[in-house]
Amino acid sequence: MSQRHVLVTGFEPFGIDLVNPSQELAKAVEGRRIGDLVVRSLVLPVQHEAARARVLPALEEPGLEAILHLGLAGGRARIALEQVAVNVMDYPIPDARGDVLRGRPCRAGGLPAHLCTLPLPEILAALTAEGVPAYISYTAGTYLCNYTLYTTLDELAARAFPVRAGFVHLPFLPAMVAAHGLDEPSMDVNVMLRALEIALRVVAEA
Amino acid sequence: MSQRHVLVTGFEPFGIDLVNPSQELAKAVEGRRIGDLVVRSLVLPVQHEAARARVLPALEEPGLEAILHLGLAGGRARIALEQVAVNVMDYPIPDARGDVLRGRPCRAGGLPAHLCTLPLPEILAALTAEGVPAYISYTAGTYLCNYTLYTTLDELAARAFPVRAGFVHLPFLPAMVAAHGLDEPSMDVNVMLRALEIALRVVAEA
Amino acid sequence: MSQRHVLVTGFEPFGIDLVNPSQELAKAVEGRRIGDLVVRSLVLPVQHEAARARVLPALEEPGLEAILHLGLAGGRARIALEQVAVNVMDYPIPDARGDVLRGRPCRAGGLPAHLCTLPLPEILAALTAEGVPAYISYTAGTYLCNYTLYTTLDELAARAFPVRAGFVHLPFLPAMVAAHGLDEPSMDVNVMLRALEIALRVVAEA
Amino acid sequence: MSQRHVLVTGFEPFGIDLVNPSQELAKAVEGRRIGDLVVRSLVLPVQHEAARARVLPALEEPGLEAILHLGLAGGRARIALEQVAVNVMDYPIPDARGDVLRGRPCRAGGLPAHLCTLPLPEILAALTAEGVPAYISYTAGTYLCNYTLYTTLDELAARAFPVRAGFVHLPFLPAMVAAHGLDEPSMDVNVMLRALEIALRVVAEA
Repeated sequence: MSQRHVLVTGFEPFGIDLVNPSQELAKAVEGRRIGDLVVRSLVLPVQHEAARARVLPALEEPGLEAILHLGLAGGRARIALEQVAVNVMDYPIPDARGDVLRGRPCRAGGLPAHLCTLPLPEILAALTAEGVPAYISYTAGTYLCNYTLYTTLDELAARAFPVRAGFVHLPFLPAMVAAHGLDEPSMDVNVMLRALEIALRVVAEA
Repeated sequence: MSQRHVLVTGFEPFGIDLVNPSQELAKAVEGRRIGDLVVRSLVLPVQHEAARARVLPALEEPGLEAILHLGLAGGRARIALEQVAVNVMDYPIPDARGDVLRGRPCRAGGLPAHLCTLPLPEILAALTAEGVPAYISYTAGTYLCNYTLYTTLDELAARAFPVRAGFVHLPFLPAMVAAHGLDEPSMDVNVMLRALEIALRVVAEA
Repeated sequence: MSQRHVLVTGFEPFGIDLVNPSQELAKAVEGRRIGDLVVRSLVLPVQHEAARARVLPALEEPGLEAILHLGLAGGRARIALEQVAVNVMDYPIPDARGDVLRGRPCRAGGLPAHLCTLPLPEILAALTAEGVPAYISYTAGTYLCNYTLYTTLDELAARAFPVRAGFVHLPFLPAMVAAHGLDEPSMDVNVMLRALEIALRVVAEA
Repeated sequence: MSQRHVLVTGFEPFGIDLVNPSQELAKAVEGRRIGDLVVRSLVLPVQHEAARARVLPALEEPGLEAILHLGLAGGRARIALEQVAVNVMDYPIPDARGDVLRGRPCRAGGLPAHLCTLPLPEILAALTAEGVPAYISYTAGTYLCNYTLYTTLDELAARAFPVRAGFVHLPFLPAMVAAHGLDEPSMDVNVMLRALEIALRVVAEA
C-alpha cells in the first residue's frame, strides 16, 4: 500500500550563494512523521523547465496528500505564505541556465492565476501563536517560485482528487546578509525550521 | 584583590512588551569567563535618572575593564554597533515614569557628543566572519539608549584610567514582531547571544 | 453619435484624510482630449458595493474605449501599474461603512484573478523615459482598489468588445506624510499628474 | 558697507548622475532677498579637501549671517534637518578623486561632534505646517556631507561672532529613481525648493 505523504520542496543555491535555506529546510524534514503523514523532500534546480520536470513525477506518486514548496525571497522580513500564483514569468536577472524571460505566461492559455489550496489563515494563526513572524502574501513574484507554485496548482486543478498545495517564501539567512553586507532582514534557520514544522502540523491536521 | 571584569547592561521590558532582549542577554552571560575577564551584568530601569543612578556605582567598581550596554532598537535589521552618543535627549513617547523630554541635553554644558571607545571595526569584522549581520551605526537615537551611552562615556572621559565603553542595539525578537503584527525585521535570541559572545571575546582580547 | 472616451476613476478621501490624490487627478483630467479620446472622470465612494454600483453603469456607456482606475497606496515609493486583480477581499480595517471583510471572494465562483489589459510595459517605458518613478506591480492588495479592478475586468471579460482596463496606485501626497508625521515616501501631485497624462497618451495611441 | 547675506551651498553631480538637486537648489535661490538677507550660493566639488578650500573663504566674507549646506542623501524619504556633525570620515566608495577613507577624523584632535546651530525645531514646524515632509536627523552620515558640516561648525566655533550653520539632506529626484530603476523614495524639485525657501525664511526671521 502506498504511504500517505506530504511533499516538501526546496531550491538549489543560486548565484553567488553557496546555501539556500529552502534546500536546507527541505532536507531537514525528510522522512519525518507528522501525524499520519511522512515527509518526502525534493530539491529543485533553479531553471523553470528543469524544476517542472522534477516536480511533475512527484505529483503522480500514490499517497501524496499535500505539497509545500519552499523558496528564498531575499528582502522580506517575515515568513510569507503565498496565496496567489499568477500566470506570468518576468525575470530580468538570468536564471541558472542564463535565460531572461519577460512577460511570458507560465502556461499559454492557462488561467490568469491559481489560489493556494492550503489553509493559510490557520497556518498563520499557528505561527503567530508560537511567536514566528509570518503573513499572508498576495504576490509570489514573477520568478521561478511563482512559476513552480503556478505549475503545481495548474496540474492539480485538472485532477479529480484534492491534493492541497502551497508555497512558503523564506527571508535571507543571517549569514547571507552578513556575507553580502546587506541592510536587509534575516531569519535564523532554527526559526524557519520551527515555522516549517508548525505549517506541516497544521497541514497534517487539516 | 578586585576581580577584573566587563560590565554588560540591559534594560527592563518597556510598554506592552513583557520581554526585552537586552535584559535576556545581559542575564544570559552573567558570571561567564571571557579570557581573563568575568562578566558582571546589570539590568537598568527605563527612566534616565534611575538608569543613571544604577550605572554610576558600577563604574566605580574596582577591576572594571570594559562596559557593553545593550538596548532594543525596534525596526533595525542588524546588530548595531553604536559609534556616537550625542548630548541630546528628545523623546516624544513617554518613558516608564511618563516623562516626555524635547531637545534637552544629556548633561548641560557637556561635550556635543562622545565617541564609543570599544574597537568597533574589529568587532564588526569578527561578527561578519561568523555570519552575524551587523554594522557600525552613527546614531544611537535620542532616547534612553543614547543617554546611557553618553552618560557612561562622559563619566569615564573625566577619569585618568582608560575603561572602554560602548553600546550595541538589538533588533526585535521574532516573537515581538509576531505578537504585534509588525512588518519589521527580527533576530533570534540565539543569534543575538552569539553576537554578544563574539563582541565580548574581541573586547577581552583587545 | 456617442463620443469615444476613456474613463478615469478616483476615490473619495478616506479616514482622517481630507484629500485623496486619486480623486484630485481624476478631476484634473476631466474633459481633456487625449488623441481621439475624451476623458470622462468618476469619483467612487470608499465602500465596495457602492463603488461597484457607480462603476457598472459607466462600463455601459457607448464610446467607452478604456478604463484607468486610480487609487492611493500609502507606503509605496513609485507609481504602481497593477498587473493582477485577485478574487479576494481581505481587509481588517473597517471601510467607510464600517465593514470588516476577511477572506471573501470579490465574486463567488469568479476566476481566481484577472490580468490587467492595458499595455503596462509600454506605459512603464514611457514613464521611465520621462523621469517618472514607476514599476509594474503584481499585487493590488486585497482592499477596495483590488476589488474595483477585479470587478471591472470581470465584467468586461464577459463581453464581446475589447475595452482595456487597468489600475494605477499612487504614493502618498507630501502633505499627507507631513501631516501624519510618517517616515514614508511621497510624490508631488504634479508628478502624479504628469504620470497620468503619459499613461493616457500611451493608452490613446495603443 | 558689506551686504548681510546667507550662504547656501550645494554639491556638483557625482558618479553616474548628471544632476544633483543640491546644486540645482543652491543656484535657484542665488541673489534672492529673504527678509533683510541676500542669498549667495556656492557649488562645492565632491572631494573633501577641495570642498573645504571652497568653503573656508566664504566663511570670511563680511556680512555673513547664516550658512545652509545642502546635499543629496539617496534613500531618505523626507527632507532631513541634520542636528549633528561627527568627527569621523568613513566612506568605502571612492570620492571624485578616487580616495577611500576609513575611520579618519574630519580634524585630528577636534571635538567628537558639533551640533547644528540653526533653529531646527522651528524650521521643522514651518515645513510641516506647509505640508513638506521633513524630520530632524541625528546622523549626517560619514561622507562629504557630514565632513562639510563638521568643518564649517568647527571653524565657526573658534570665532567670537555667532554665525549659525546647518545642513539639509535631500531625497533623490524622481528622474534619478526612474533612470536607475530604484525602489527608493524621491521628491520633486519644486517641493525641495519650497522647503529651502521656508527654511531660509525661518533663518532670516530668527
